[in-house]
Amino acid sequence: MRIRIFVTGGTFDKEYDELTGKLFFRDTHVQEMLRLGRARLELTIDTVMMIDSLEMDDRGRAAIVERCREAPERAIVITHGTDTMVDTARALAGAAALAGRTIVLTGAMVPYAFGSSDGLFNLGSALSFVQVLPPGVYLAMNGRHFPWDQVRKNRETGVFEATAAGPQEGQELGS
Amino acid sequence: MRIRIFVTGGTFDKEYDELTGKLFFRDTHVQEMLRLGRARLELTIDTVMMIDSLEMDDRGRAAIVERCREAPERAIVITHGTDTMVDTARALAGAAALAGRTIVLTGAMVPYAFGSSDGLFNLGSALSFVQVLPPGVYLAMNGRHFPWDQVRKNRETGVFEATAAGPQEGQELGS
Amino acid sequence: MRIRIFVTGGTFDKEYDELTGKLFFRDTHVQEMLRLGRARLELTIDTVMMIDSLEMDDRGRAAIVERCREAPERAIVITHGTDTMVDTARALAGAAALAGRTIVLTGAMVPYAFGSSDGLFNLGSALSFVQVLPPGVYLAMNGRHFPWDQVRKNRETGVFEATAAGPQEGQELGS
Amino acid sequence: MRIRIFVTGGTFDKEYDELTGKLFFRDTHVQEMLRLGRARLELTIDTVMMIDSLEMDDRGRAAIVERCREAPERAIVITHGTDTMVDTARALAGAAALAGRTIVLTGAMVPYAFGSSDGLFNLGSALSFVQVLPPGVYLAMNGRHFPWDQVRKNRETGVFEATAAGPQEGQELGS
Repeated sequence: MRIRIFVTGGTFDKEYDELTGKLFFRDTHVQEMLRLGRARLELTIDTVMMIDSLEMDDRGRAAIVERCREAPERAIVITHGTDTMVDTARALAGAAALAGRTIVLTGAMVPYAFGSSDGLFNLGSALSFVQVLPPGVYLAMNGRHFPWDQVRKNRETGVFEATAAGPQEGQELGS
Repeated sequence: MRIRIFVTGGTFDKEYDELTGKLFFRDTHVQEMLRLGRARLELTIDTVMMIDSLEMDDRGRAAIVERCREAPERAIVITHGTDTMVDTARALAGAAALAGRTIVLTGAMVPYAFGSSDGLFNLGSALSFVQVLPPGVYLAMNGRHFPWDQVRKNRETGVFEATAAGPQEGQELGS
Repeated sequence: MRIRIFVTGGTFDKEYDELTGKLFFRDTHVQEMLRLGRARLELTIDTVMMIDSLEMDDRGRAAIVERCREAPERAIVITHGTDTMVDTARALAGAAALAGRTIVLTGAMVPYAFGSSDGLFNLGSALSFVQVLPPGVYLAMNGRHFPWDQVRKNRETGVFEATAAGPQEGQELGS
Repeated sequence: MRIRIFVTGGTFDKEYDELTGKLFFRDTHVQEMLRLGRARLELTIDTVMMIDSLEMDDRGRAAIVERCREAPERAIVITHGTDTMVDTARALAGAAALAGRTIVLTGAMVPYAFGSSDGLFNLGSALSFVQVLPPGVYLAMNGRHFPWDQVRKNRETGVFEATAAGPQEGQELGS
């Protein structure tokens, strides 16, 4: 089974700029993480963009959908910032052209480069789920997987939670 | 879904004794790894033993089988040294009393305490596979999952490989 | 020989807030760093403030001078953000009441919590210099020590450099 | 001031061999540690040997003395296993040809590669002491410096301790 990983940035890949004291994006750490994890999967890694997910807009989502559509793989993992991960999942689920694919979005609460990140755990989790889940769009966070329309990020705790049914747009995006 | 984790030691949990300069076991790092991974699963963690898997014998395997039998959970992850992981998987697969359970063994090539371990990746992977694979006994290593009787550890490379069919005892244990 | 460490914040002690994605201060990491370094020195650690050194003003500097004046130790290490470290060193050097003390300021380019920091190296360096340098005010960065009035931070490279003679205020703060 | 670093191995540079599960030596980590510490010193690094200090014998010590004698630098840091560091210090102190040089031995209780090592702290410390101490042979451990004949390693605690006067061979090497 071949797997495609699309990198879009997010906390996962943030680094510390020691000259400015600010967080920024340079290259993705996904290759290094796969090396650390001794992953032996047939993988292709593509960087679509490197942005904070708060900056992800409809155009960005359309680009991700398009790249998934063009990918020959049926199994796709997308690394993504956690703040708008559910929104991108919804866009992917709404794209009829992607039916038949298993797409798993994952991210991290702490940058991988900061040494105590959940990123490696989440990447191992997402790559595992994508191999065995039936076609559909999912989030993999906190060791769990969620269908795209049954999950929200609890902004108080930073934890992804199952929702009773269907998308919870009000809760998800509201203040 | 409730998951049981049985800890048996292995490279996963080895530490460096700074007085003797030798590797040794103290407590398991699984709780700390789950905290780092921000896991939000219903988990019970039990330490069965803390040994190098080269020291695992039939009695140790019988103890593991017994503990799995007693566990109320249908989903079980076992952390185990990589050298004899396949042998313990075989013992578990041979225990009729365990039918109906999904059991996933995992381990690490480098101790978690050493900072650049594959352990966190593997734990994320094993916990994900155990939630979605049908009943059976599996190994989760290198981002992949293997039915217990279709895998061997390549001792030259340290990589787990699929075998064409059935257990490969000769290759596995041979010189 | 007793040593006093005054903590003032700086990059040294910044942490990543996983809910906001921003850097912030909580507690100092100096104790943890000393434990990691197996330091066996007679030390007293005092947190004076926890701020970014860009926010350090004359009042803050006056507070640091006052705390040094009250300290019974002749050897004092101050952890400080690198951007205005030279300015605080100048304030200390100008305080007649501190004559007879060896005061060493140090800091870090990368937060200790981020795993690949220069902080531990710099702390080992500053604590060593403070034990053997004659009375005066110094900076310890990049494995070197500089008298307070013969150093500037090169903002292009992040490296502390010796200046030919006397304070270089123009260069230091100019564009 | 130019500094020479002689690498001899020791815990400092031990690595974990993931195929055998044993500790071994490959290349020194000193360059990487200096990069992490943002050291900006005029340094030459030479690997003399890569051994466990329990294997250091008179011939090895003679080789170290000889290399120090040939070095043009007056400031020399030697990375060394902690178990016999005092013995090598004694050999260096006994070499009349080295008079006029400041030689500082340092090491680590935990391998640098294991992520929670005292090595970076000790290296920062040794490089600082060597720049300011008068000629002589010293050990730099635990944030302190000791003249070669006033120190022993406490094997119960792993801590280097000052001895009242002169070498303590009985205590040091006795059972």
